Amino acid sequence: MSILFKNAKIMETKDGRLNVLENAFLGVDGDTIDYIGTEKPQKTYDQEKDMYGKLLMPGLNNCHGHTAMNLLRGIGSDLPLMDWLHKMWPIEDRLRPQDCLAGMEMAILEMLACGTTSFCDMYLFPQDICHCIGESGIKANLTRVLMGENEDYKSFFKRNEAIDFRERCNGLYNDRLHVDWSIHAEYTIADNIAQGFAEELPELGGRLHIHLAETKKEQEECIQRRGKTPAKWFYDMGFFNIPCYAAHCVWVTEDDMDLMKEKGVSVVHNPSSNMKLGSGFAPIPRMVEKDLNLALGTDGSASNNNLNMFEELHLASIVHNGYTGDPTIMKPETTIKMATVNGSILQGRPDTGALEKGKKADIIALNLDAPHLVPDYDTLALVTYSAQGSDVCMTMVDGRILYENGQYLTMDRERVFHDYRKSCEYLGKE
Amino acid sequence: MSILFKNAKIMETKDGRLNVLENAFLGVDGDTIDYIGTEKPQKTYDQEKDMYGKLLMPGLNNCHGHTAMNLLRGIGSDLPLMDWLHKMWPIEDRLRPQDCLAGMEMAILEMLACGTTSFCDMYLFPQDICHCIGESGIKANLTRVLMGENEDYKSFFKRNEAIDFRERCNGLYNDRLHVDWSIHAEYTIADNIAQGFAEELPELGGRLHIHLAETKKEQEECIQRRGKTPAKWFYDMGFFNIPCYAAHCVWVTEDDMDLMKEKGVSVVHNPSSNMKLGSGFAPIPRMVEKDLNLALGTDGSASNNNLNMFEELHLASIVHNGYTGDPTIMKPETTIKMATVNGSILQGRPDTGALEKGKKADIIALNLDAPHLVPDYDTLALVTYSAQGSDVCMTMVDGRILYENGQYLTMDRERVFHDYRKSCEYLGKE
Repeated sequence: MSILFKNAKIMETKDGRLNVLENAFLGVDGDTIDYIGTEKPQKTYDQEKDMYGKLLMPGLNNCHGHTAMNLLRGIGSDLPLMDWLHKMWPIEDRLRPQDCLAGMEMAILEMLACGTTSFCDMYLFPQDICHCIGESGIKANLTRVLMGENEDYKSFFKRNEAIDFRERCNGLYNDRLHVDWSIHAEYTIADNIAQGFAEELPELGGRLHIHLAETKKEQEECIQRRGKTPAKWFYDMGFFNIPCYAAHCVWVTEDDMDLMKEKGVSVVHNPSSNMKLGSGFAPIPRMVEKDLNLALGTDGSASNNNLNMFEELHLASIVHNGYTGDPTIMKPETTIKMATVNGSILQGRPDTGALEKGKKADIIALNLDAPHLVPDYDTLALVTYSAQGSDVCMTMVDGRILYENGQYLTMDRERVFHDYRKSCEYLGKE
Repeated sequence: MSILFKNAKIMETKDGRLNVLENAFLGVDGDTIDYIGTEKPQKTYDQEKDMYGKLLMPGLNNCHGHTAMNLLRGIGSDLPLMDWLHKMWPIEDRLRPQDCLAGMEMAILEMLACGTTSFCDMYLFPQDICHCIGESGIKANLTRVLMGENEDYKSFFKRNEAIDFRERCNGLYNDRLHVDWSIHAEYTIADNIAQGFAEELPELGGRLHIHLAETKKEQEECIQRRGKTPAKWFYDMGFFNIPCYAAHCVWVTEDDMDLMKEKGVSVVHNPSSNMKLGSGFAPIPRMVEKDLNLALGTDGSASNNNLNMFEELHLASIVHNGYTGDPTIMKPETTIKMATVNGSILQGRPDTGALEKGKKADIIALNLDAPHLVPDYDTLALVTYSAQGSDVCMTMVDGRILYENGQYLTMDRERVFHDYRKSCEYLGKE
């Protein structure tokens, strides 16, 4: 199957820079982009789609979240962090695999509708529910998270589930599913579990998803307890010896950032969550200067409270201006790359994240025929400051259209809502 | 004409507090709400509308902006403030009344589609273009702004236009149009013009729209020049002796806030603009403590870059948590009132801003049947943290539906786009 998009505005990547073509063509053959240009290609495609008034851009990568926490959306809003957690935990204890499946499927509906083509998740029962990645057509890096109890490492069920999950499922669905490792955080893992995991890490390989320096308390208590920052602890334990992506990083120090740069640790910035929970402002402009690989995430819906990457793109583009007093500090090109290609690098998907010949066709279209999107003097600024998630009119992953004009082409919206509402009823009220 | 909304979720106001009714009825007779309750009213209405799965809430009031700056959207994004202004001014000098009309009409299309029922504007040629308020059905407080030249006050054309505009147009269109006064800012008005205006203010009456303490530079230079803050200058000049609303107030001092409280000055918080331009974070939590009347605005599209009040509501609800480190500091009820009833008070419209029997029917509906809006454990939190402007499916002003499901009922969308694109072409390129 091949498709030619024509008459489109196209945000291509050229020599590593974002560049906007007007009235251009983009060809997709199978799962791959095989043409971008302002001349009509010679080749005949199975289908042509007129994209007049629309912008094609790379799909967004939501690089940190807990998808099924959408089931808890709005519970305990506006409580202090510890009170909120204490309200959450007893409900989370009751979550069953079918609830997490319903939550992840609903999250995928939400994400596809606002332009997310790939996500990283850290939550419960991924090994039981990952078939929905196959069915929906989206890409995901899932993890069976390591946290908690001081048990014997080799017989610890979470370790064994994580290893089994990776062995069985990594690379499934034409490599749309990646299975990564996850340590929830420095303060939630028992020392012997951390030690055991660190010892077998060299043979395990793979990628590691962690929470890092989200709150001032986390940073300070680790320094008190261990005499070092959480970042230094992860570094010393050897966890940064495999590709690692660290969510939040609000309170990292200069030295922490240097260690992360040395080891190529990617940072996932979650501006909505960090502000809503009162965690603070991550030193993103400093990380830009240090050339760390920076991506974006929504965090879970319980602390955001949605999965709209256009909001995160917007916030990443303005909050640091406000915080530093410098309106030039975050450029649209920087933040759009955070939302797209940097996330692909983080996920171990160097074959996507940009509209370039030879890349995977993970493409979204924005309908520019809207009062808030005219005129277009600067397309990157328009996408960053003016566009909404709801402007997305098409989401394509690996050359397959999954969402178009309010319709889902691979998922049964009614069935997902039905299952989700049943889980909400089970968990409390809806 | 009377309408009964049925099966709705309704965010009513009861004894001054927001309260959510489930499966409820709301009756509108003419321009007024005449029933709210969970029992079906006895009275027969001309029309019944089933609002199952929808939330009725008060329309939003965008209390500070420069609507026709949408024509300049995206020009000079990411420049330092002064460079940006120097890029803007020569283009603004070329604006004609028809351009400002096209800009205001396009802004009204945008605002109606995301739930704004009333706006305050400070820009050019309001006296020539205000008929679009009549035609569109929206409510507005317009001003012919005083700024600039050191001319004889009584023969100053801006003064005379402002007085003439108010005399001719204040209260037109069933009082949907209010004509207010405006001083652009302390630093942009000649002393003799300010003096002359201050002298005749007692007989002029009305309301006053100003910029105040937007940047640190503005605050500091005024103290240097006049030995007092801009707020103290406005106070001493007597400008706070009529109802006044002050946009931004990022750098106001404790004393400034106390003066404003003493005189009942309303504050318009513009979080997107203040962050994007690097102005900083207004001390909104402190103003909440001092019980100032706080409203919300988008500012112009050139410094936002859109007119989406749901974004401002969201930002006002989270940025101060991040800035203070306290996730409980801004409550959804506080910020929803900022976006609604407080703005009505500011605008001199005590007959609206809340869903209550006897209030004007300025009502919006949100479609809750969306992946990011389930479950609804806390409707105020849902509206504040999860909802999008694009969730608005109906906008009613004075009992008249102006926008519904993507369609404009009073405005010709194609004609407005046509005129707007012509103005964009005239101003540069589109």
